[in-house]
Order: sequence, then structure tokens, then C-alpha cells
Amino acid sequence: MTYDCIVIGTGPAGVSAALNLKIRDKSFLLVGDPKLSSKIEKAELVKNYPGFPDISGAVLKDHFQYHLMVMGIEVTDEMVTQVRKYGDTFAVTAGPEFYEARSIILATGVVLTKTLEGENDFVGRGVSYCATCDGGLYRGRHIAVISGNKRFEPEVEYLAGLAEKVEFYPNYLGPWFSADNVETHVVRLKAVKGEERVNALVTAEGEVPVDGVFILRDSMSPATLLPELEVEGGHLKVDRSMATSVPGVFACGDCTGKPYQYTKAVGEGNVAAHSVLDYLAEMDRKAN
Amino acid sequence: MTYDCIVIGTGPAGVSAALNLKIRDKSFLLVGDPKLSSKIEKAELVKNYPGFPDISGAVLKDHFQYHLMVMGIEVTDEMVTQVRKYGDTFAVTAGPEFYEARSIILATGVVLTKTLEGENDFVGRGVSYCATCDGGLYRGRHIAVISGNKRFEPEVEYLAGLAEKVEFYPNYLGPWFSADNVETHVVRLKAVKGEERVNALVTAEGEVPVDGVFILRDSMSPATLLPELEVEGGHLKVDRSMATSVPGVFACGDCTGKPYQYTKAVGEGNVAAHSVLDYLAEMDRKAN
Repeated sequence: MTYDCIVIGTGPAGVSAALNLKIRDKSFLLVGDPKLSSKIEKAELVKNYPGFPDISGAVLKDHFQYHLMVMGIEVTDEMVTQVRKYGDTFAVTAGPEFYEARSIILATGVVLTKTLEGENDFVGRGVSYCATCDGGLYRGRHIAVISGNKRFEPEVEYLAGLAEKVEFYPNYLGPWFSADNVETHVVRLKAVKGEERVNALVTAEGEVPVDGVFILRDSMSPATLLPELEVEGGHLKVDRSMATSVPGVFACGDCTGKPYQYTKAVGEGNVAAHSVLDYLAEMDRKAN
Repeated sequence: MTYDCIVIGTGPAGVSAALNLKIRDKSFLLVGDPKLSSKIEKAELVKNYPGFPDISGAVLKDHFQYHLMVMGIEVTDEMVTQVRKYGDTFAVTAGPEFYEARSIILATGVVLTKTLEGENDFVGRGVSYCATCDGGLYRGRHIAVISGNKRFEPEVEYLAGLAEKVEFYPNYLGPWFSADNVETHVVRLKAVKGEERVNALVTAEGEVPVDGVFILRDSMSPATLLPELEVEGGHLKVDRSMATSVPGVFACGDCTGKPYQYTKAVGEGNVAAHSVLDYLAEMDRKAN
């Protein structure tokens, strides 16, 4: 089926957008971490989300999850790695799945992890963002797995079941997944190296020869997802209706720029969803 | 004293802006109805304010009031009738008071009451928006008082104490203020008429000869407050930082355009306050 919209990201902006699409009976997916934003959870005290004085990020997140539950909105627990536009339709790669939608709302947050040197050069030539999609290519091989979130541990386990040896670089607090063929390192990462394909990961401690590097991150920069998007000062360029430079693609929350605030994010999510409603109505008018 | 900022309007946008100014220790006034927006109170069910599933407008308003109380933010119960820029400072007329501020946040909502025909032509020549300011001019005279909110009844009483006769046109549910020299009418209003000065109010039932017309409304259109403001399609023109066409004046909420949504309003209030912080810092830099 072709969804009316796919909302990418489950922080406050994505949640807010999803509520409005649901109220207006649109068919949509909300794709991201079902635990919502890990950044929210870490906020000790939020004082400026109107209506909730002195609330912890963790409790605010609980309220958001409860709101989704009350509205019957489920989170599709996948990481989106690619968005492509074909005519009036978007094809979204999310983990091993492909989805189609008439419009996209990007609520991907700000990617705090910097891209590794060389990472972009080797995408598809040894650098992968999806264990399920590309794991099979590394059966019996020697790989590095970089992970930004505990929720990717099933992917790490899956890769460990295929590869001969896994060099594991978790970027979160332990305890970490372990297995006989998994060696865990806590070290600063520097670069991905190679010639035709990846042949090493460079860390602060030196080079580790590997056949492939899996990078499991909570979010990818929108410009990596959909390179046609216009970026300004490191953020997606949007107008007051939250429209990006690509017709049918709207954005909200931290990915559109500062201030990085929950209240701003929910406001923009609301506007982005209303703009999607207008966009869909306009497309329907044109089709008739 | 010169405040860092004056926030005009106590709907969701104004409340959100005020929270952020308070957190950042700015000196400011939040001017408007202490009961906050009457429009919120009337909303039966709000389903899309993230964190509060299925909440009534009245209860959401209670949460906002509680949040203001927790933060120690008081509402200045006046109606702003004029904003003027003198160099880098703004002079704000609010009821009988004058305030000075370095910046302004307009959160005046959408003025649903249409301006009466002739109203703008006779401002200062028989049309007044402030009982306390101009009441004295109508001692022993015959006046009309148009009121959009029960909270203005002390003003109506004040005017009845001065004028010989008051024709009272309340635009809200009764019971209404009454006095021997007050005649209450429920009728559609059409125009303000006059020559040099006002000489009549025109209603659907005919002309009522009066010496002055007091119009007591919850909010005035921002363009009436500060005529230099650029308006686009009936709304204040703002950029992504919520800056209006007048440096130092920011706007948020319904007055900046659709969608008319609480969630959008709080988001924009947050952004407007952050832009005021940037603006004040920039002014300080220039001064040093």
C-alpha cells in the first residue's frame, strides 16, 4: 500500500506530527525508536514545556508514549536509511523493509555523532547502516560494528552470528552484548579507510583491518537520507509551513535548526502535519 | 524602569514565551487577561497537545495557569492599546499605564471581532479603547460602550459613574452589569458615524446618537497597536525566528497565521523568546 505519509523520527516533533495525522484519519507510519528520543530521556529537568512545570525528560517521554497509546498510534521500530522520490511517490528504506508514501515528514533530530572521516566515501562499498540488509555479505568475514544505542544489540548479535569476528564499538553505557567472537572496545574512532572497498577502521589506538564497517545510529542526517534536500548552516532549509526544498517533504524539530527545544519541536510537528494535509488535498485536486 | 521585554497576550503563545524569559532571568511583563485565553477555555476537547491526551481546553488552561504560578510569573491585567518605537525603546500604553521595554513579543491572537465600519476613522475623535484613560472626557455625556468580555465590567461601571447615560452592547452571555443610567442592548452593530467627531452608533435597529463610543475588546489587531508592522494575508509577517518587520518586535501564535493550534502557538512562543534573548545580547554587544 502507499501511505499518505511516513513520519521519520519519534522525538517530540515526530510524535506531535503523528497525533495530527491520526486525528485527520490519514494512513501513515511513525518510524523510529519506540522508546522515543533518547535525548528527551536524558533531560534532567524541563521547565518550559507549557503545562508541565518542572518535569523530568523521562516523565515527559512517558506522557508522550501514553498519548500515542491512547490515540492507537504504533511505532514502527526500524531505522530509515534511504528516501527516494519517484514521481509523486516516495520509497523509504527502513531496515530490511521498503515502504511507499505520498509525503514525508522528517523529524530526525540533530545528528550529534559526527560522520567518520571516509564514511561517506565507502557507503555501499563496505560501510553499511543496516545489519539485516547487508549482514549476509559478511558471512565468515571480519567486521567492525559501531553502535550508538543499546536497542541495536539484536543487530549486533545477528552480525556476530554471521561474521567470523566482530570488533564492537558501543557508544553507550554498558553492560554490552558479548559473545565469544566479539571483542568490545571503548576508544575514540577516527576514520574509515580503504581502496576499492573498506579495509580498515582507524581508531585513536591505530588501524584495525576489517572487511566491513556497520554503523548503527539512532538517526542519520537528512541530507544522507535524501541528498536533494537543501541544507543551510547544517540544518534543513524550511519555510514557515515547514516545507523543505523537495515538494512533499516537510521537516520539524531539531533538524530544522535552533533553538533545540521540545516546545519548538512539538509546534513544528503540528505545523508540518497540517502542511501535509494541505499538500495531500492539493495533490488530490490535481488528480481529479 | 525599562523592561527587557513586554509580552502582549496571555494565550498559549504568550505563556510559552514568558516561561522562557523567566528561566533566563529577564525582566519582563506578561500583559493580558489573567484568566488567559477565553478561546482556550471554550475548546471542548484538545487531542493534539503532546503529553495531554483528550484534555478539555478549560483544564489545559488550568495547567498553564499553574505553570505560571510555579514559575512566579504574574499577569499584568491590562489591555494594551498602543505600542510606539522611540529609538531602541518601545513605549507601551496598557490601560492607564505606560511601560517601557527594549523588545516586544506580540501574542495577541486573532481578532475575531471585525472592526466596525468607521471605527478606525474616529480613533481619538470619539472612539476609545480605554475607559480609565478617556472616561473623564465624557462626564455628563451620552456614550455607547461595546464590550467583548465580562472582565471589562469594572470599566463599564466606571464609565456609568461618569456619563449621564450609557448604551451598553455586551457581546457575551449575561447576566450583565446594570445600573439606572445603563440601557443594555443585544443587537448587531454596524458602524460608527460622525462628522468632526463621533455623533452616532449605527446598529441593525437604527442610529443611536452618542457623544462617544468605548470599545472594550480582549485584543486589538497588532497592526492597530503598531501600524509599522508588515501584514500579509491578514497576519503578521514573520520569519523563521518569529521576527516581524520591526526590529525588536517578535510575534507568535495565531496572530502569525494558520494553523490556529495551541501546539503551534507554544512552539512559536518558545522561538520568539529565544530570538528576544539573541536580540538583547546583540544590542548589549553593540552598546559596549
